[in-house]
Amino acid sequence: MDNAMEFQNVTALAEANIYFEGNVISHTILLPDGSRKTLGVILPGQYYFGTEAPELMEIVGGHCEVVIDDSNSTDSYDAGTSFKVPGDSGFTITVSDSPCHYVCSFL
Amino acid sequence: MDNAMEFQNVTALAEANIYFEGNVISHTILLPDGSRKTLGVILPGQYYFGTEAPELMEIVGGHCEVVIDDSNSTDSYDAGTSFKVPGDSGFTITVSDSPCHYVCSFL
Repeated sequence: MDNAMEFQNVTALAEANIYFEGNVISHTILLPDGSRKTLGVILPGQYYFGTEAPELMEIVGGHCEVVIDDSNSTDSYDAGTSFKVPGDSGFTITVSDSPCHYVCSFL
Repeated sequence: MDNAMEFQNVTALAEANIYFEGNVISHTILLPDGSRKTLGVILPGQYYFGTEAPELMEIVGGHCEVVIDDSNSTDSYDAGTSFKVPGDSGFTITVSDSPCHYVCSFL
């Protein structure tokens, strides 16, 4: 995984997903196998996301700190690393400096 | 053109394009014919964009007011409408209420 990550042969939805008044923005892509991912950006701040399905968060740019529900550890992630969040759970993500770019996969 | 606009069989680049400290964010898609588009969001504010190649801006959500360089008219655009900007020119775009979603094509 690196900054040049790309997804081929997908369907891209034109309208963005906007959270926290624009501090987190993503675009949805649909893959040939029917799965869905979102390509997103997190601006500096702290945000809580709940999950329905389990999620894989791949960081493709920037840095973030993450606390997953029911965990008492804060973990750091840079571009090229990823973390999983169980379904029916959630995570608090903190971005401090430059924006954090991610790919979210719904497992 | 409407909010459900989508682009099939494209390559989507994972890392976003960020302008004006995150007030304008887009993701790039590459089409089978080799052309490039960006799917973007403009948060409330006023922004100036210069152009190199001519651009087609299709509004797929929200509303904006636009003044193209060397023009003395301000034109309004809602979802489903579009405007062209010559190359080596530019435009001032103002978004007032809800975020404005666009598709930018490089002609």
